[in-house]
Amino acid sequence: MNEIKLFSPATVANVACGFDVLGFCLDSVGDEMVIRKTDKKGIFITKIDGGFNLPFEAELNVAGVSALAMYNALKPNCGFEIEINKKIKPGSGIGSSAASAVGSVFGMNELLGKPCNKTQLTEFAIKGEALASKCEHADNLAPAMFGGFTLVKSLSPLEILQIPTPNDLYATIIHPQIEVKTSEARAILPKDVALSKAVTQWANFGSLIHALHTSDFELIQRSLNDVIVEPYRSQLIPHYNEVKKEILKVGALGAGISGSGPSIFSLSKGLENAKNVANAMKNTYSKTGIDFDIHVSKINIQGIKILN
Amino acid sequence: MNEIKLFSPATVANVACGFDVLGFCLDSVGDEMVIRKTDKKGIFITKIDGGFNLPFEAELNVAGVSALAMYNALKPNCGFEIEINKKIKPGSGIGSSAASAVGSVFGMNELLGKPCNKTQLTEFAIKGEALASKCEHADNLAPAMFGGFTLVKSLSPLEILQIPTPNDLYATIIHPQIEVKTSEARAILPKDVALSKAVTQWANFGSLIHALHTSDFELIQRSLNDVIVEPYRSQLIPHYNEVKKEILKVGALGAGISGSGPSIFSLSKGLENAKNVANAMKNTYSKTGIDFDIHVSKINIQGIKILN
Repeated sequence: MNEIKLFSPATVANVACGFDVLGFCLDSVGDEMVIRKTDKKGIFITKIDGGFNLPFEAELNVAGVSALAMYNALKPNCGFEIEINKKIKPGSGIGSSAASAVGSVFGMNELLGKPCNKTQLTEFAIKGEALASKCEHADNLAPAMFGGFTLVKSLSPLEILQIPTPNDLYATIIHPQIEVKTSEARAILPKDVALSKAVTQWANFGSLIHALHTSDFELIQRSLNDVIVEPYRSQLIPHYNEVKKEILKVGALGAGISGSGPSIFSLSKGLENAKNVANAMKNTYSKTGIDFDIHVSKINIQGIKILN
Repeated sequence: MNEIKLFSPATVANVACGFDVLGFCLDSVGDEMVIRKTDKKGIFITKIDGGFNLPFEAELNVAGVSALAMYNALKPNCGFEIEINKKIKPGSGIGSSAASAVGSVFGMNELLGKPCNKTQLTEFAIKGEALASKCEHADNLAPAMFGGFTLVKSLSPLEILQIPTPNDLYATIIHPQIEVKTSEARAILPKDVALSKAVTQWANFGSLIHALHTSDFELIQRSLNDVIVEPYRSQLIPHYNEVKKEILKVGALGAGISGSGPSIFSLSKGLENAKNVANAMKNTYSKTGIDFDIHVSKINIQGIKILN
């Protein structure tokens, strides 16, 4: 096999009480990528579709940097071309850079006969992600690579836990077309938090992990609360509280900020509820004059997948 | 049935990263209690064995106060006598007051034909526990009532989750015979904690819940870390770090402060490891001149039980 075509999925990180550690994988939105072996050694970005003006220099491109990290570690006897059909908008908060970073290393690994496991691949992808977000993290990489819900227990050493995904769990995402700078989203967070609130957060997070294990949708609903980060970051997203209020009315299990925003995610039991949530999001945001995209997706338990 | 004899177990609260929310139940140490229906209305503490000089007035006794809370709510057509054979030393940090509080209401409920569920009984027991600890909490009550590992998701409304207990999981406890005042253990805690440490704590706590669900002992070991409370409270327990270091050497999965101390708990896979931990605790503490008790116990998945 000299060429592989991939679907590299969008993801949601910072899942409410699981801020900085819990993410999940989407199915209905993701990048398409082609990775091709070449005789000429090196990493070459040969095509970028989607119209987002991303750099072709491997050292300046997220997919290129993660590919180079793997390439320099494994020193294979060939080179690789990378084509990216970018369908996840950069800056949307649903793991656009993570999809690129995961895609290149996953594809190279397949073409090289799978010398690396998924955790090792994620280590390479972290290098690419760091180019985009200016810090090393795996919040979006882990669910894109492993699928389902992932808990990044620690970065050093990298340890990723796969948490079970209840059947029939759907996500709805609204992406308001505004810019939230990651630096601003970081700067707005307090350095210290009240111990009492931290206790509430880990009670909710432990409950959420238990609820995912037991497919207890009502407990998912009661656990999807973020008392630490949401009160700050929601200020950066126009109409956040209004959207949240309206979607909870139509049966959402909960909602939160996807990544560092501006996208807002919601979880629902069943496709119909997820579509009702999409309608409520649309109705609320249509009145604001801000353009937006909406995605409805089953939780993708496979993660990145081969298309050909 | 007019009389019931009970084993009301000792418990460990504040399980490392699960500070304030996670507890588990012991099997080898607990109080024995007899609850008896009487024609005379009221709650009467008629016998207290064990030599701890506890009050006989129902309003001043933890078992009495929880019994009165239930009695006043249900207004039964009889009264109750309570006998307590106290085997859990008060102030040891393994839920002595919780055992008394749970025992009286569990016994009354059995004699009345089980009008209440375990969560409702815990609500009554909270009133008794508050007499001893000066605040309402269910950290020790929940595991004594339900058995196994319990997560107190919230106090108001009271919501208790039963987390699976891996087979072959044992606890070892050392109770150094010193006094740690609950007020001091509380005062030593900071009001605020670094957000970065709080994230580490909930990553560990989510991992621990996942590990209990999957019976992953190695992950239990990697998750049993408390980066928030232990650094402060361990200062109140002489030789804490030394004990912890020695028991980790002989195969303990982890250790922490039981409740607010002074007891130190440890978890192990299998009875033999738990006994090795007991020996290491004994060797370390024998040199200190401080008296101590040691308990080795399988995790008690049943909780409080009827003896006759």
